[in-house]
Formats: sequence, C-alpha cells, structure tokens
Amino acid sequence: MNDPLHEEQESSEAVFDGRLLKVFRDGVRLPDGSAGVREYVKHPGAVVVIPVCEDGLLIFERQFRYPLGRAFLELPAGKIDAGEDILACARRELQEETGYEGEHWRHLGVMHPCIGYSDERIEIFLATGLTHVGHALDEGEFLEIVHMSLVAARAAVFDGRITDAKTITALFWAERELAVG
Amino acid sequence: MNDPLHEEQESSEAVFDGRLLKVFRDGVRLPDGSAGVREYVKHPGAVVVIPVCEDGLLIFERQFRYPLGRAFLELPAGKIDAGEDILACARRELQEETGYEGEHWRHLGVMHPCIGYSDERIEIFLATGLTHVGHALDEGEFLEIVHMSLVAARAAVFDGRITDAKTITALFWAERELAVG
Repeated sequence: MNDPLHEEQESSEAVFDGRLLKVFRDGVRLPDGSAGVREYVKHPGAVVVIPVCEDGLLIFERQFRYPLGRAFLELPAGKIDAGEDILACARRELQEETGYEGEHWRHLGVMHPCIGYSDERIEIFLATGLTHVGHALDEGEFLEIVHMSLVAARAAVFDGRITDAKTITALFWAERELAVG
Repeated sequence: MNDPLHEEQESSEAVFDGRLLKVFRDGVRLPDGSAGVREYVKHPGAVVVIPVCEDGLLIFERQFRYPLGRAFLELPAGKIDAGEDILACARRELQEETGYEGEHWRHLGVMHPCIGYSDERIEIFLATGLTHVGHALDEGEFLEIVHMSLVAARAAVFDGRITDAKTITALFWAERELAVG
C-alpha cells in the first residue's frame, strides 16, 4: 500500500451482530502516524437491475423503507446471498420482486452507496427480453410495481420523486445504454 | 399513514452508540399484521457540493475510505453539524476540504444514499464563483484535490474510476445544470 492516504488497520472489534447489520469498530493508524477509530457496516453486497420492457418502459418498485419512514420509488435490488453469483442474484431478485424473467443480461458496472460507513457494493445490471412469470416475494416483503419511461424517470429525479441514490446512479448508466436503442 | 406499504414502529432500542454510528433495532408491525425487525443507522444528514471553477472544471477529492480499504474519487461532502443550516454546512465543507469559497450557491435537491439501513439524506449544492482561500482540514482528515471536467468525470464513471453513488447522483444533476452554460 503505497497510497499516501492509506489508513492501516491495528485492531478490529465486532460491536453489533444483528440479523441484517454487522457493525465493526477498528483502530487505525492514520497517514500522519496518529491513531484513529473507524466504525462501519460490513455488507454482503447487492445488485440493482434496470429492467427494460419491449415498449421501452422501465420497471420500478415502490417499497417502504423503514429507516426513513416512507415508501421510495426505486429500481429492483437486493442483497447477494452467501456464495451467490452476481448474475444469478440479479435474475433472482428481478423475478422475486417484479415477477419478470429477463432473457438478455448485461453487467454495466459497480457502485458504492455509502463509502463513509459501509463496505457495500452494488452491481448494476441491464435486463431486456422480459417475460412475466409471476411473483415470489420474500416473507415480510411488500411492494408495488410501477412502469415508467426513462424520460419520466429523469423528470421524477428532478422533481424529487426519485431520491434513492442507487436508482439515480443506475439511471446515469441507463441513459448511456439506452440512448442509442 | 394510509400507505398500504406502511410499517408501524412497535419498539425501538439503541444497540450501538459509537462516535460516528448510532445503530437502532426496532420491532415493527408489517402490512399483513405480522411482526418484523428493522435494524438501521441514524445519521445527522450530509451535504455534497458540485464546485465549478471559471474554466468549467469541477473540483473532486481523492479520499481514503476505510470500510473499503482504498481511496475514492468523489465530490466534496460532509456531515451536517447539530443545528447547522445546510447551506452553511456546504460552505464550510467546501472550504475545509478544498480551500475554496463559493460566491454563488444553489440547492439542487436531496438524495438518500442507503435507504435499506440508514436514514441519511444528502443535500446537493452547486457552487460557482470560486476563490481559493486556503485549507482547514479536520483533524485526522487527509485528502488530495483533483480538477476534472464534467466530460472527464462522465468518462470516469463509465470506466469505473468513479463508483461513489453520491458523486454519480450529483453528476446526474450537474449534467442538467451545466448543459446550457
């Protein structure tokens, strides 16, 4: 590690081991040699899917997000299971949450939603050739499906109806990918 | 709350009270009447700034992000202090992290970086009329300043050099705001 900004781990302690959240507190040596503390969440990683129907509409969800106490308009997404291939995860989450299977899949890139206090990465997929095959929501998962054009989604960002950063980041990619189609 | 997706709080417990992270575990009643558990971070909120120089270049930072063990290329950002006005916070963070003051400020919107397990919101500001007045980094804060055009930043998203979702979300706004200029 020759990066002059590098912080070196000196200790690590699991301070909360919940059902969803695993929180750690590490002692670190900062670039100037002084000691620091870093607290963060360890996350298994996730996928987000941009599902594009034949008529060009994208499939969004409205899902209640408890930490903020309201529903959000967002693209289908979900956590990667232990050992799960990321494309298999993307296929599974799309089907479980929206009831659609995609024939064609493309991995676009990766984003990091919360670099200040989480190691989560979100793998971004584009899915086309969609067929509706029915739902299989996880237990305790409730959501509504919303079809929206890319132009309407863009407008929804700028009028504040879409504020979820993973969704907006995926739309940044979608605008490039779908511009030529 | 007439939203059919609403989850009702039944209990709330602070499970970790760190320097940076405050973690809660709540018991909730789900839409079908069953019981659930929600774990999440309470966050004071943050700002991100799109600083645009007179030559059109944007000011980015390279900052080490310990949870992911490497430096990230990102726009200037920081947490809102207790009781602090969001514009005052944006001015303060820009100056502390980059050494620049902005003459003209515009609030563009808000994003939510991590709706699955954090209540964090990030307020998005555009700053122009920049003057360099010198640095005042927080103790234990180390970073490098990088000037980059919007076109170069866009390319850096698509080749994987920028993966920070708050930065890409802010660029989604910046492309609209700066398209006409």
